[in-house]
Amino acid sequence: MDRSRIRSADIFAVVGKDPGSRARTGILQLPRGPIETPVFMPVGTAGTVKAITHHDVSQLGYRLILGNTYHLYLRPGTEVIGKFGGLHEFSSWPHNILTDSGGYQVFSLAPFRKIEEEGVFFRSHLDGSSHRLTPESVVRVQETLGSDIQMALDVCTAPGIPHAEALVASDRTTGWARRAKTEWLATDGRYRGLLFGIIQGNFYKDLRRKSAEEIIALNLPGIAIGGLSVGETYDVFLDYLSSTTELIPEEYPRYLMGIGSPRYILDAVMNGIDMFDCVFPTRIARNGTVFTRTGRIALKNEIHTMDTGPIDPECSCSTCQTYSRAYLRHLFKAGEMLGPMLATQHNLAFLQDLIVDIRLAIREGVFVKFREQFLENYPDKQG
Amino acid sequence: MDRSRIRSADIFAVVGKDPGSRARTGILQLPRGPIETPVFMPVGTAGTVKAITHHDVSQLGYRLILGNTYHLYLRPGTEVIGKFGGLHEFSSWPHNILTDSGGYQVFSLAPFRKIEEEGVFFRSHLDGSSHRLTPESVVRVQETLGSDIQMALDVCTAPGIPHAEALVASDRTTGWARRAKTEWLATDGRYRGLLFGIIQGNFYKDLRRKSAEEIIALNLPGIAIGGLSVGETYDVFLDYLSSTTELIPEEYPRYLMGIGSPRYILDAVMNGIDMFDCVFPTRIARNGTVFTRTGRIALKNEIHTMDTGPIDPECSCSTCQTYSRAYLRHLFKAGEMLGPMLATQHNLAFLQDLIVDIRLAIREGVFVKFREQFLENYPDKQG
Repeated sequence: MDRSRIRSADIFAVVGKDPGSRARTGILQLPRGPIETPVFMPVGTAGTVKAITHHDVSQLGYRLILGNTYHLYLRPGTEVIGKFGGLHEFSSWPHNILTDSGGYQVFSLAPFRKIEEEGVFFRSHLDGSSHRLTPESVVRVQETLGSDIQMALDVCTAPGIPHAEALVASDRTTGWARRAKTEWLATDGRYRGLLFGIIQGNFYKDLRRKSAEEIIALNLPGIAIGGLSVGETYDVFLDYLSSTTELIPEEYPRYLMGIGSPRYILDAVMNGIDMFDCVFPTRIARNGTVFTRTGRIALKNEIHTMDTGPIDPECSCSTCQTYSRAYLRHLFKAGEMLGPMLATQHNLAFLQDLIVDIRLAIREGVFVKFREQFLENYPDKQG
Repeated sequence: MDRSRIRSADIFAVVGKDPGSRARTGILQLPRGPIETPVFMPVGTAGTVKAITHHDVSQLGYRLILGNTYHLYLRPGTEVIGKFGGLHEFSSWPHNILTDSGGYQVFSLAPFRKIEEEGVFFRSHLDGSSHRLTPESVVRVQETLGSDIQMALDVCTAPGIPHAEALVASDRTTGWARRAKTEWLATDGRYRGLLFGIIQGNFYKDLRRKSAEEIIALNLPGIAIGGLSVGETYDVFLDYLSSTTELIPEEYPRYLMGIGSPRYILDAVMNGIDMFDCVFPTRIARNGTVFTRTGRIALKNEIHTMDTGPIDPECSCSTCQTYSRAYLRHLFKAGEMLGPMLATQHNLAFLQDLIVDIRLAIREGVFVKFREQFLENYPDKQG
């Protein structure tokens, strides 16, 4: 299809709506197969979801993972990945990949950065080497990666900056999204990836509205919300989640960037979000913290020393079917790599189970009740 | 069976002999199933073969792994493992386990140790706490672990010590083996594990002979050779391997402790060794060094940057079937856990393939030629 004619309606169909909230379930048609929404994307920053094989990620039911353009551009670089025909072939992941544009990583990782109208100049956090990324070059990098969904380069900002500064960043994000679209329309006809725009605007309602209107006006196939869950309080997060999501028309797949805890996922879904990603579940797993249906637990805690039970008795993942809390605690205390491996397996299985349950609850029109019941047993505010 | 009547002939049968060498293949009957020999035992020091699940170790064809009494006694301790009914249940490994007695670890790891006739007093390398292990207590610890083969506590010595010192250590090893046997005969009737004795004697031929005669005289079901591959030159290793193995009657399963590189395995087998273990293949894997049929390679080397080929084109392991050298190099350069995971999978698959080929070559009476051909392509002296 002519890329300029791709509309959200061509790739996304809402197939179920919850009567008591804005939650919906749908199908997202991507180059490497359809994706049911809501969908959580495990993060494979550098071409691997940490501590688990792509085969196992796929076995858990995931068909869409996230890669980071910033990391992959710096290492191993597009020359290497290009030689393989893309990130899918390089990393042996045959399903869909969404790649972040690098805007957030430049903002959070680069030891030096200078943002100009042309693009962003920065030094690598790996070796201090100098690099320039522009909205155009980032589209081309993601084309080389073969991303099924690519994100337009955006300007991320920290909470608490003045309105004037947030306005500049938001306006630049819009300008860059426009240039990204032009470049995306010019990519090779064999490249089938979609371009999503990102709404910024910091924590100013008027800027969020302005950004949303401008990004939506570009008629891209999907819309993301950036700059939330960056350190603001839970109440502020909820406020901006709700008010920003409302600005995105129903027909767009809506992607909330950077959230991945059960509570935040349930809140996002309730507000009509369809996609989300976060390193949180895999990062806490490597540190020995795992989800259970009654809240998170730290496996290293002494209480698990003699515990012959699984992490979560209701979980059917291979970790819970095979190993005890006592054994897992031992692995983490001994610094054995198997600990992070098994905990990662569990946390990703747990979230996938939650997502499947969420879809079912939406289809059955009982999402609000499902959410309430889940959170009644799940005390962790931030997780 | 009454433990005092267990003879090597009850648990071990040589089923094939190579006409050109002392190599043989056989069946070792262990509590949790028969084991074909020669056999390499992956090392699961602390209740896990590092960076791989026990399920995957089993899928590679391994049915006998090694655990370390010293490590498991210190952490998580026998109280925890005992509650699970043993190490098999605790670590979800349903097949056979051989446990090292801890003698070597006290010798190589403990920051303080004092060896007396009664036993060994040492401080833990983990927290400096004081411990005492005796030949008797080590038997009981291994009974609690449920070891299918347990080793008698021995006194390990460094190369280069005086004859008189080596004699004391060797004599003590014999005395301890005798006490271990008495304790083993008194273990619970439901415990079915076997006790092997260890020949010491440092690098003195007369002491090796004396130790061998004394240990063999105990009529234990199996005999190990300790104190080789501890830093001596390759020629000295070969000399002592050959002269010590000759001292062990044919009907005994012979276990050479601490070797696990292709060349050392081929040398051991040629001299009539049936069992061996080493951390080498899994340790180098975690550092990015992998076996190939043309020698070891370091995956981090720049030469692999754009290499789309597998580690070893003849290898059928999941790593070689799925991933390129370039991707593996990227994982190691990026410090991703998946690198050690995939390299461990490969190195253990490679050694299992080698062992299976060795058994076949012995059965077909062509082991000497097989060994020569393998080593012709495999240049690494130490690996």
